[in-house]
Amino acid sequence: MSLSNNSIERICKIFGYLDTLDKQGTKFASSLDLAKAIGATSYTVRKDISLLNIIGYTRKGYDVKTLKEELGQKLCLNKKRNACIVGLGRLGSALLDYEKFQEDGFDVVAGFDSNINKLERIRTDIDVYPVSRINEIIIRKHIELGIIAVPSEYAQNIADTLIKAGVTGILNFSYVKINLPKNIINVNLDFTNSLRFIAAKLSGNTTNK
Amino acid sequence: MSLSNNSIERICKIFGYLDTLDKQGTKFASSLDLAKAIGATSYTVRKDISLLNIIGYTRKGYDVKTLKEELGQKLCLNKKRNACIVGLGRLGSALLDYEKFQEDGFDVVAGFDSNINKLERIRTDIDVYPVSRINEIIIRKHIELGIIAVPSEYAQNIADTLIKAGVTGILNFSYVKINLPKNIINVNLDFTNSLRFIAAKLSGNTTNK
Repeated sequence: MSLSNNSIERICKIFGYLDTLDKQGTKFASSLDLAKAIGATSYTVRKDISLLNIIGYTRKGYDVKTLKEELGQKLCLNKKRNACIVGLGRLGSALLDYEKFQEDGFDVVAGFDSNINKLERIRTDIDVYPVSRINEIIIRKHIELGIIAVPSEYAQNIADTLIKAGVTGILNFSYVKINLPKNIINVNLDFTNSLRFIAAKLSGNTTNK
Repeated sequence: MSLSNNSIERICKIFGYLDTLDKQGTKFASSLDLAKAIGATSYTVRKDISLLNIIGYTRKGYDVKTLKEELGQKLCLNKKRNACIVGLGRLGSALLDYEKFQEDGFDVVAGFDSNINKLERIRTDIDVYPVSRINEIIIRKHIELGIIAVPSEYAQNIADTLIKAGVTGILNFSYVKINLPKNIINVNLDFTNSLRFIAAKLSGNTTNK
């Protein structure tokens, strides 16, 4: 199966929305409901879902629970994965608190910071360690995903260390683009891009697509 | 001019990358450079740029400074806009610290929280106020953008208050989808969607598109 990044991104959003609907007790959702929730057209939603060889569309719409399970299975979203957060400043420690990671199957099992005083002061139930122990802890705790929240100038170095220890996916909250080997999956989350998107839409560059 | 959401999203990312290149002193960038940086194909990048009636492709590639200015102008990304953050827990106060908002032309001019003790204790140069003053401050400070970082159960109520006061764009960090009038531009930032995307790609659902 070979999906474009755009399709994967949309399917992940659909999965997240189905999960919300399921928790609310909603049984069925139309492709239009899903489309509105993720900001796409219902044609695109039906196409994305059909790419996964899922049909499951009834007269009442998609069965929420079934579709969620099927999408999760096809995209391996039901598998628990361990993650760590590096950089426990305000943003990093906010991320330690981000309960949705856990709810959604991403288990944050370690936090790292170079400042020992910070590690001693931080209030969290998650185990925290000095950066010097990244390699040991990642191996011991089978950590696949690294979340980077260090200042920009350290991001590349931390990414290299994480990858050397065996991390294969990186979510980067620092302001810089990091260079990574091709086999590493990487997302840069730059909050200002979201504000720019809003600003551009407010300026009238808008369709409903 | 009528662009799809996907195009606008990519152009905002291209704009951000051009800004980085410009600050680094890089003069030219090929469509492939831009494509790699934002995770699209160079064909898509050229098409997005041409949709804006920008040509500007030379033998050395795009002129970084010129293209940045043109994209910024077409999408009104050069205009300064005032923003506020509601909810000053760990994530909200991390966002008060997020220097890139300011650098990128989004001026966070107010923070709000319902907890007066928190407002007194918080260390920040940005003016902070109780939630009860949202309406007054938004009008006085000409705030267009609202960043929501309150617990999920309060998000809808806060969004309604912001919109009533005149905010037209909302960046929502809470875990719920909020219902908004059609004229309001809204982005939900759910960090687990980024981790899901990484997880799906790690499972081999991958093309280079």
